[in-house]
Amino acid sequence: MTTPQAGARDGRGGPVIALDAMGGDHGPREAVRGAVRAVREHGLRVVLVGRRAEVARLLAEEEAVGAMPVLHAEDALAMHEGALASWRRPRSSVAVACKLIRQGEASALVSAGSTGGVVATSTVRLRTQQGIMRPALAVALPTRPRPTILLDAGANADAKPEMLVQFAHLGAAYARSAFGVEEPRVAMLTIGSEPGKGNRLARKTAELLTAAAAQAPHATRLDFRGNVEGHDLLAGEVDVVVTDGFTGNVALKSVEGAVRFTLQAVGEAMTSTTIAKAGSLLQRRALRELRDRLDSDTYGGAVLLGLNGSVVMAHGASRAPAIERACLLAHDLTSGGISEEVRSRVQAAARTARRPRLGAAEDHAR
Amino acid sequence: MTTPQAGARDGRGGPVIALDAMGGDHGPREAVRGAVRAVREHGLRVVLVGRRAEVARLLAEEEAVGAMPVLHAEDALAMHEGALASWRRPRSSVAVACKLIRQGEASALVSAGSTGGVVATSTVRLRTQQGIMRPALAVALPTRPRPTILLDAGANADAKPEMLVQFAHLGAAYARSAFGVEEPRVAMLTIGSEPGKGNRLARKTAELLTAAAAQAPHATRLDFRGNVEGHDLLAGEVDVVVTDGFTGNVALKSVEGAVRFTLQAVGEAMTSTTIAKAGSLLQRRALRELRDRLDSDTYGGAVLLGLNGSVVMAHGASRAPAIERACLLAHDLTSGGISEEVRSRVQAAARTARRPRLGAAEDHAR
Repeated sequence: MTTPQAGARDGRGGPVIALDAMGGDHGPREAVRGAVRAVREHGLRVVLVGRRAEVARLLAEEEAVGAMPVLHAEDALAMHEGALASWRRPRSSVAVACKLIRQGEASALVSAGSTGGVVATSTVRLRTQQGIMRPALAVALPTRPRPTILLDAGANADAKPEMLVQFAHLGAAYARSAFGVEEPRVAMLTIGSEPGKGNRLARKTAELLTAAAAQAPHATRLDFRGNVEGHDLLAGEVDVVVTDGFTGNVALKSVEGAVRFTLQAVGEAMTSTTIAKAGSLLQRRALRELRDRLDSDTYGGAVLLGLNGSVVMAHGASRAPAIERACLLAHDLTSGGISEEVRSRVQAAARTARRPRLGAAEDHAR
Repeated sequence: MTTPQAGARDGRGGPVIALDAMGGDHGPREAVRGAVRAVREHGLRVVLVGRRAEVARLLAEEEAVGAMPVLHAEDALAMHEGALASWRRPRSSVAVACKLIRQGEASALVSAGSTGGVVATSTVRLRTQQGIMRPALAVALPTRPRPTILLDAGANADAKPEMLVQFAHLGAAYARSAFGVEEPRVAMLTIGSEPGKGNRLARKTAELLTAAAAQAPHATRLDFRGNVEGHDLLAGEVDVVVTDGFTGNVALKSVEGAVRFTLQAVGEAMTSTTIAKAGSLLQRRALRELRDRLDSDTYGGAVLLGLNGSVVMAHGASRAPAIERACLLAHDLTSGGISEEVRSRVQAAARTARRPRLGAAEDHAR
């Protein structure tokens, strides 16, 4: 069994990442290139999973034969395939990578395959950590000074309040493992920032989160800061924003669409007159850097939290640099001890749930 | 009774707009200034509702005494006040304006007061049009070539599928009355564009919308184009996007926040180096125009649809130009015959609902 070691990027003893070589719109070439960069430039330990002959040929093209092991998988999930169809395929590269994790030979999966297929396959094959009801999809928004984690970004369209409380713990564990945030600030996404605002799910969830935050302080307590609204998502004032998978997915895609729309409108405005055009030549570089920063790939992709093994999903359109970043994120989560962090949080929450606790009304009055 | 007349902006015979002079962060001055512009520059018919002495003094400052009637209201909704507290105040300017509409002396209400207060007060005092379950808050997104209407943007946090079908008709009536769209294209906001995606509410709603669209074509049928996702909101490919008030509010605020965030990041990027700074001087005007276009005030504010009378809510921070635009929107909706359009759509939907209709499964197979 590979033991994850904190901070190790030296190629010896760090966590092993099983990389799905077959996923993504650009095929195995970009995956292999990304893997080579992850290994050569960051000393990560990567196993490529996919059609051996094809992957070996691409490794040879990169002059990287022998740089990392290749595990054969004869099948691959199609990008257009539904979630159900995907998890029924036991010989897909994603399924074989999951098997490697179950056997203790790897700690994390990285894939640029279809989100639905990877979520379904890894949920069924890795299973949730003990005590976790559902895995949640987490994304790191490009806020400053550090990213805000939004979850659930789409794994569970219909959720229960108790699940959202667990998502808060999963998000806090992510912030701590990957970004080193000691006491992550958690908020709930709703409409209206005052307590009691929102739909039934949000109102009940806020009650439970308030109660969880009122527990005696210990390493795993929640620092619940209350409600945030859609326009707070990019304000960078909290570390974790919790919501159900339907709302989270709509919010995430609304943000992505609006950023893209605005950058495009800026581009058009800047070339709309001769004077503006002259100005834009001077600024091309500054704007390209901004575009890169706001690019959702920059933060390494979405993470499926709560399973027995870290699962990082790079965007389907990922090129080698995005694959490389996804591998780095998988490495940081695993060597940052996210599994242990989730385990101790869930256990602590279960213990306090067994103790008689204060009623929600009393909690509010504090 | 004032009879709304289509297209009239000539100051004679057009619909009368009751303008809440007391609402908004900047107090009565901006409301009065906006009203004066609406009357003088567009020939609209406006009644100012608020504290008579104060409003008269401001009219005198604008040299506009006698330009429009003033109706006294001794009370005003506070910006911070909750919805419940607001609708209990029978002498607020919003309540008095609603009374004017009920008496047939005005056709529309315009206010920059707190959304919660105006929604609650006008819903209780104007009541929903016959056959309408709930009013919906609609906003026009700054898409091109013409605005996309998003509703419900926050009036109903917990909604039923049947309500969302009515919202589709309300949105279509808005697109037709205000923007002259003959057959508005309607879509539902969800996660994943394929049929069957989304949470329980979205799946059931899509079924009902598909069935409604399959009815024999007539003037009031729905042109349902299926699902859209968050990143499609600003694509300008449909005229109406339907969702529940919780999701709609989160999506709207996520878009607004992301646009603001991106413009700010662009501003920073453009002044980050001396060269970029030089460029930005050349482009200042182009970017200011863009900011104005993306400013949510530009389209005249949010509209509460489905009541006996048009209700247009300008943003709380509205200055005179935003009030002026809100008055224009109220005028266009009313003289475009939105009430009649809603009435005929609801009646047609009720008639077809009484007829035996095809099952949803058959509809899907078409």
